[in-house]
Amino acid sequence: MFDFNSDGTSLGAYSYEPHREHRCRHPILRTFKYTSRKDMDLTGTSLIGFSAGSNISTPFHSLNPATGVELPEEFYPASSDDIDRAAKLAKNAFRTYSKTSGADRARFLRTIAKEIESARAEIVIRMPLETALPEGRANGELGRTIGQLNMFADLVEAGNWVDARLDSALPDRAPAPKPDIRSMQVPVGPVAVFGASNFPLAFSVAGGDTASALAAGCPVVCVAHYAHPGVSEIVGKAVIRAAKACNMPDGVFSLLQGTGQEVGVPLVSHPAIKAVGFTGSRFGGLALAKVAAARKEPIPVFAEMSSINPVVVLPGALAARGSAIAGGLAGSVTMGVGQFCTNPGLVLLPEGAEADTFMASFAGQMDETKGGTALHAGIASAYKASTASKRAHSSISTLVGTDSESPAGVAPYIFRTTATSLLIDESLTSETFGPSTMLVTYASNNELIEVIEGLEGQLTGTIQYDPSDLPISPDLISALQARVGRILLNGFPTGVEVCHSMVHGGPFPATSDGRSTSVGTGAIYRFTRSLCFQDMVAGGLPAELKDGNPLGIWRTVNGQLTKNN
Amino acid sequence: MFDFNSDGTSLGAYSYEPHREHRCRHPILRTFKYTSRKDMDLTGTSLIGFSAGSNISTPFHSLNPATGVELPEEFYPASSDDIDRAAKLAKNAFRTYSKTSGADRARFLRTIAKEIESARAEIVIRMPLETALPEGRANGELGRTIGQLNMFADLVEAGNWVDARLDSALPDRAPAPKPDIRSMQVPVGPVAVFGASNFPLAFSVAGGDTASALAAGCPVVCVAHYAHPGVSEIVGKAVIRAAKACNMPDGVFSLLQGTGQEVGVPLVSHPAIKAVGFTGSRFGGLALAKVAAARKEPIPVFAEMSSINPVVVLPGALAARGSAIAGGLAGSVTMGVGQFCTNPGLVLLPEGAEADTFMASFAGQMDETKGGTALHAGIASAYKASTASKRAHSSISTLVGTDSESPAGVAPYIFRTTATSLLIDESLTSETFGPSTMLVTYASNNELIEVIEGLEGQLTGTIQYDPSDLPISPDLISALQARVGRILLNGFPTGVEVCHSMVHGGPFPATSDGRSTSVGTGAIYRFTRSLCFQDMVAGGLPAELKDGNPLGIWRTVNGQLTKNN
Repeated sequence: MFDFNSDGTSLGAYSYEPHREHRCRHPILRTFKYTSRKDMDLTGTSLIGFSAGSNISTPFHSLNPATGVELPEEFYPASSDDIDRAAKLAKNAFRTYSKTSGADRARFLRTIAKEIESARAEIVIRMPLETALPEGRANGELGRTIGQLNMFADLVEAGNWVDARLDSALPDRAPAPKPDIRSMQVPVGPVAVFGASNFPLAFSVAGGDTASALAAGCPVVCVAHYAHPGVSEIVGKAVIRAAKACNMPDGVFSLLQGTGQEVGVPLVSHPAIKAVGFTGSRFGGLALAKVAAARKEPIPVFAEMSSINPVVVLPGALAARGSAIAGGLAGSVTMGVGQFCTNPGLVLLPEGAEADTFMASFAGQMDETKGGTALHAGIASAYKASTASKRAHSSISTLVGTDSESPAGVAPYIFRTTATSLLIDESLTSETFGPSTMLVTYASNNELIEVIEGLEGQLTGTIQYDPSDLPISPDLISALQARVGRILLNGFPTGVEVCHSMVHGGPFPATSDGRSTSVGTGAIYRFTRSLCFQDMVAGGLPAELKDGNPLGIWRTVNGQLTKNN
Repeated sequence: MFDFNSDGTSLGAYSYEPHREHRCRHPILRTFKYTSRKDMDLTGTSLIGFSAGSNISTPFHSLNPATGVELPEEFYPASSDDIDRAAKLAKNAFRTYSKTSGADRARFLRTIAKEIESARAEIVIRMPLETALPEGRANGELGRTIGQLNMFADLVEAGNWVDARLDSALPDRAPAPKPDIRSMQVPVGPVAVFGASNFPLAFSVAGGDTASALAAGCPVVCVAHYAHPGVSEIVGKAVIRAAKACNMPDGVFSLLQGTGQEVGVPLVSHPAIKAVGFTGSRFGGLALAKVAAARKEPIPVFAEMSSINPVVVLPGALAARGSAIAGGLAGSVTMGVGQFCTNPGLVLLPEGAEADTFMASFAGQMDETKGGTALHAGIASAYKASTASKRAHSSISTLVGTDSESPAGVAPYIFRTTATSLLIDESLTSETFGPSTMLVTYASNNELIEVIEGLEGQLTGTIQYDPSDLPISPDLISALQARVGRILLNGFPTGVEVCHSMVHGGPFPATSDGRSTSVGTGAIYRFTRSLCFQDMVAGGLPAELKDGNPLGIWRTVNGQLTKNN
């Protein structure tokens, strides 16, 4: 039986070294008694740079999704003036923050990590109350968040990421002299970051978007997710403490309370904001993209939105270890109550007796799971509507499915259909966010590839293979490559390793900009652009581009990578 | 006196080595007598992969802008079926072309360069007829085009550009094993390229967009600019000959005749197209961006659109060499009949007697120029409307300005105003495409910076300084950095060096995606995205990511750049 509430150990690969501390239990945790805002020192206001936001708007409360009861603290949506102040402070901070050295930014990022670690006890109590995620998950995700901050600190301290390029002058070239040209990546300007409901730490206030934007040299104005304003405030204050400790400019970071509609839309419309990072629903991501495109100066939006993460089971793999695949799949589908962007929502099996056996075994395991509590009631009600619609579809059989009775409760749904049906009605591949998956039988390799080619863009695509399936069809790899950002072999897509080579992105609608990743060091390039200098004197050049390579970084000099010159 | 028709020598830095041949005169040029389509073998149809397009639509003719007379050849706008066939062929070609090696793509690009060189005689006769650009310019731009193709050939042959990243597995890591992850840049899919009116070779059929897309592994469907369909067909056929000679798949390249509205819009809407490269007007670029965003699967549009390229003259420079700056500026403003994206349309001068002397000298030089012929009558009429509007503005004085009497004729316009007026009415900085510039006096460094910060995004920003102006104000550099893609010192913005470090892009509306460049090797990344493999077996990995580094390229292995492993 799967316990939805024990996924702290199975968050997957959330570590960038060092990560060992994230499963420690702090002594304070055992003695800290949570009662009211007074204990937690939650003010409920936004953090406008180093000042408090207003407390004049109608306050809201976060809800404990497990009990349906409001938590006592009041939170005040940011006022128009708060939003404007935060954006203008960020613009002002950009003047100096964009010029800080990699070493200074690294120190800032590491200090944020330390300040968050120092707030571990508070976070680990507050996060479960606001999200129904277990304490183990809070500890694990906190470790990942700290790891991400340290990873970007290492990246900017090393400094090679700026892609410095130098081409020497040739004053005597005919018919025209060749000028001296030098280029590098520079920060785009203040970034609006939206906290995600499903990762209250790793994709929220000091998560990957904020870490990569700050690493790039961009101030951040973050919109806290309204479902976990308390944990957002705790983390936001940790960032502010770090900014002060590192003498960073006022406005390098602000945190706005409120909803995406109330606060996010005016923030993205603000002329001082130059890019947007978002993880959430397709509806929300597209709405922000529309606002950003309608500005006088349109800006890029990096929205990670929607993915059903197909898993292809090849015949040999099914025969050799169908039962193990079924077990792994059940774990992946239910991990985090099915609320991961990389949840495997589509499983493609070669039709026949072995597929039937697999489905029976998988359905049996899923039927025994007891369900869990969604992050908020909105997710649960969308899940219920989506599963009801699939249940009613004439081409779909429901193998497992019982509705939870509690408002925020969700229980697993397993559906079955055929590739032929899928090719007729693409609505069968619509995302159902939660602990659900669709098992699909395919009749031939050609049909399998046709299904993959017909899918929308995805974050991941997985192949389950056995040596007897080798060589893997190049057409299968090609078809997946055209549709996804990450191709896995014999694994499961949940669990996103945080490292240099990770790609957590994919063609639309997996992300609004399919060329980007929101995880790994490559995420920094969402918030930079190329700038070049022509015949600039030394005094006008940044250190990265000066003669003699004072920072000792890798640079492309006349087309050759070198640390010399 | 400036002669608008002698800019072949002053196209600026158009060379990527080798470039020496581009000013040779071929003997055939002197004997080749242009009379009719028969001589040129222009069929007037689109090139749909290796087949001819239809000739059923109402044909159009190109116009000789210098005489206003239609050229005799008929050209047939691509039919809906032509467009659909080209896009589908490109999709099909992508399956194999995306897997070609860097060496194969390099051979293809170099063969295109050779085939274009072999058509030099035809091109150098046809281009002036369709564009009113002189033969010297045709020869120079052809050299640049060949240089660009060879530059991308070198890039993909070396192979380092793919940004290969490998992170090793740690199977024993706790709490979860670390998988093996490997990532690289892969092509996005078929690219729609729009030929530019102002660079009939270097930004058209086999120009920078096509070269970078083909280098990336993307098939290209190009829309010929309707003003120079003949030179487009000649170049398109050279590309097709090269594709056949190199055994590239049918559909790796197609050329569509017709207008952006008739042919470009349906092409960009076609589901097989995955990205767009465009150089042209703001109106055209924004229209295509809108079409691309409204698709079921939105795609990126890299449109280079609008820039007035501010030139800041510092007081010391004005005093020390005002006359030389005036001369250089006159050359830059009138180069190519003012029809370069990097034309300096805004000159900021410190107010005072020296500025007045400068303006008198500059106006005197410009007044002596005899004007020239625009690329087509549409440009001339837009120029006349824009200059008339500025002339009528109460805050602007007209120092030089006489309208040309011929329909496609344009004569220089020099306007004068103050920074104070500019800050009140931003319409004073609107682009006037042609041989015109606005001279603006500023009262203080603060006012200068305020003007720059208020500008829209620009391709370039130039500082004219003298050692007596040093150190250059860091605020000035910062202000320019936030608004432009290239900062020049003591040069003029026309003439874009083609090299690794060039950035020809800038914040909106200079480009629709301010993070991109359309010139230099960095242009390839417009048409690629990141893809990673997790725990993939050797047989499923591309050569760039295999163990042992069989291609010998630079790779980031566990965070360290190396050619080993």
